[in-house]
Amino acid sequence: MSEVKILNAGSLPNIPWQDRPADLKTETPVWRYSENPVLGRNPTPEIARIFNSAVVPWEDGYIAVLRGEQVNGVPYVYLGHSKDGIHWDVEREKVPFTDEDGNPMMPHYAYDPRLVKVEDTYYIIWCGDFHGASIGMAKTKDFKTFTRLENPFIPFNRNAVLFPRKINGTFRLFSRPSDSGHTPFGDIFLSESPDMVFWGKHRHVMGSGGEWWQGVKIGAGAAPIETTEGWLLFYHGVSSTCNGFVYSMGGAILDINEPSKVLYRCANYLLTPEEPYEVSGFVPNVVFPCATLQDGDTGRIAIYYGAADTHVGLAFTTVDSVVNYIKSHSVLHYGDDEAKHNY
Amino acid sequence: MSEVKILNAGSLPNIPWQDRPADLKTETPVWRYSENPVLGRNPTPEIARIFNSAVVPWEDGYIAVLRGEQVNGVPYVYLGHSKDGIHWDVEREKVPFTDEDGNPMMPHYAYDPRLVKVEDTYYIIWCGDFHGASIGMAKTKDFKTFTRLENPFIPFNRNAVLFPRKINGTFRLFSRPSDSGHTPFGDIFLSESPDMVFWGKHRHVMGSGGEWWQGVKIGAGAAPIETTEGWLLFYHGVSSTCNGFVYSMGGAILDINEPSKVLYRCANYLLTPEEPYEVSGFVPNVVFPCATLQDGDTGRIAIYYGAADTHVGLAFTTVDSVVNYIKSHSVLHYGDDEAKHNY
Repeated sequence: MSEVKILNAGSLPNIPWQDRPADLKTETPVWRYSENPVLGRNPTPEIARIFNSAVVPWEDGYIAVLRGEQVNGVPYVYLGHSKDGIHWDVEREKVPFTDEDGNPMMPHYAYDPRLVKVEDTYYIIWCGDFHGASIGMAKTKDFKTFTRLENPFIPFNRNAVLFPRKINGTFRLFSRPSDSGHTPFGDIFLSESPDMVFWGKHRHVMGSGGEWWQGVKIGAGAAPIETTEGWLLFYHGVSSTCNGFVYSMGGAILDINEPSKVLYRCANYLLTPEEPYEVSGFVPNVVFPCATLQDGDTGRIAIYYGAADTHVGLAFTTVDSVVNYIKSHSVLHYGDDEAKHNY
Repeated sequence: MSEVKILNAGSLPNIPWQDRPADLKTETPVWRYSENPVLGRNPTPEIARIFNSAVVPWEDGYIAVLRGEQVNGVPYVYLGHSKDGIHWDVEREKVPFTDEDGNPMMPHYAYDPRLVKVEDTYYIIWCGDFHGASIGMAKTKDFKTFTRLENPFIPFNRNAVLFPRKINGTFRLFSRPSDSGHTPFGDIFLSESPDMVFWGKHRHVMGSGGEWWQGVKIGAGAAPIETTEGWLLFYHGVSSTCNGFVYSMGGAILDINEPSKVLYRCANYLLTPEEPYEVSGFVPNVVFPCATLQDGDTGRIAIYYGAADTHVGLAFTTVDSVVNYIKSHSVLHYGDDEAKHNY
């Protein structure tokens, strides 16, 4: 196959990176950072654990929105700063969300944040409480003021992930309709907005089922990466066991102009809990991707993922190897390859 | 109290009507049509039962979108025609929904339709399947062509009810976030749209709880009626028993310009299953309001409600008596009276 390229990502020469170890037992094109985890227990006196967090390049380094589980057990969003994307300084104060007039407007709780730049604005998206689990959003340009946006959906919903650019003039947002508990089902949907206020033209993207590692539910993970083969999506898939859920990372390629249409979907997981910090922790057996960094020049991709609801792990791949692995192990499920209707 | 008037409803001198019987044992300002039910079992060879249906004035009589349970057990939407709003001719063919190009676009199933006129267009809103229970919509101007609109929400959702006019330039739609089964919870939310395509600015209107007849869940019923005291909303409230749910009808008054704000909410039900056709049927103990007719001149209101998932019942009230009963028995729950925030 011809070499796959990342589009519209620019150069990121200081991307965190290690080459693939020669002695891996697996064929999956994703490998872990040898010094994992990069964040974890008790980073500040106020935070018990950091996991499920998102990173973007910022100034001469990186900035992150972190899921910090407070010592009262309530999750919130904190900022992290890093020169190399690996060693992090965590702010002790919560992200100070405000309304449009600058008045404090703090969510009751906020978890699993994503952080996506579209044009000149950074959007923070999290799961919060709106008379039930639902999606909260805010925007910033300077990481000093954080202005809340309208909630895009009514409950119950989790795992909202924004595309890094408009498509045919509108914003696009993945989400995963849920229930009020530890939802035992879940498909990925896509919604469209002209203005980040009103949302519609909802489409079903792909469902759970098929292979057992994604048999119970799936949810979008990192913001999609634009490539010469389509949008590269890292997502999570969940298996059910007699002792609870197991979260793995999968990959799919979506049509560049109509991303509700799945072109390829990897039947095998790309990363599954194996390491001590993934199989053991507050919630054992969780690998939960939330963000990537990518270098358009080399095709390198760094993946940030939550591990066992306790740590942040870092993994690596290249766009060429991961796209070709997904394509060569692709099994589409019923309806994946259709532009989705309205029924 | 000063007399309450209906606003913007026009004259409807041929509204179905009976005066309140003198011998009613109850104080509730709603009474039943003496010849109930008006629709029910086996109206056509294809339909086993008709219930949960909506009516509007049309030409020199009335037209209805009917929930017809087919003899295969799958619900669908049919048209009904009536001169007096009481005696109905039911069409044997399903409502022929199409896409914008006129191609057939039939839902897999459709139930609990509402029918609301806004400006010069009639909107049909139902619950259908979009990878889970969710809201379907179509529009018509002539009741011959029925053009599907985009689904307003991702699953799971039921009981969507449109306001009969725009408020501050936007359409307003009630709905009730749900789960994938016989949902054991449920609050009424309000959403806003500039164009009936994109929806946002979602607000929580009111929740279940408090009085036991509405302790499990609530959902909007008929399109709100504009009055001099605010929007008059008939809704359903559900109680749980050892042998299943019991559905009653309640009433609330909402702020005319900011209808997520509840001004008055009647602590007592307005109608509860008592008659044989309400307490017995396919689903015993259901009173489920879906539509009203109103005469602006006299203040008369005719309420169409589903009875026991088997029949359509008709009940009557006057705007003055029902609004004053709601006001004098009003108990607001926590947060009902706030303009709702975004948390």
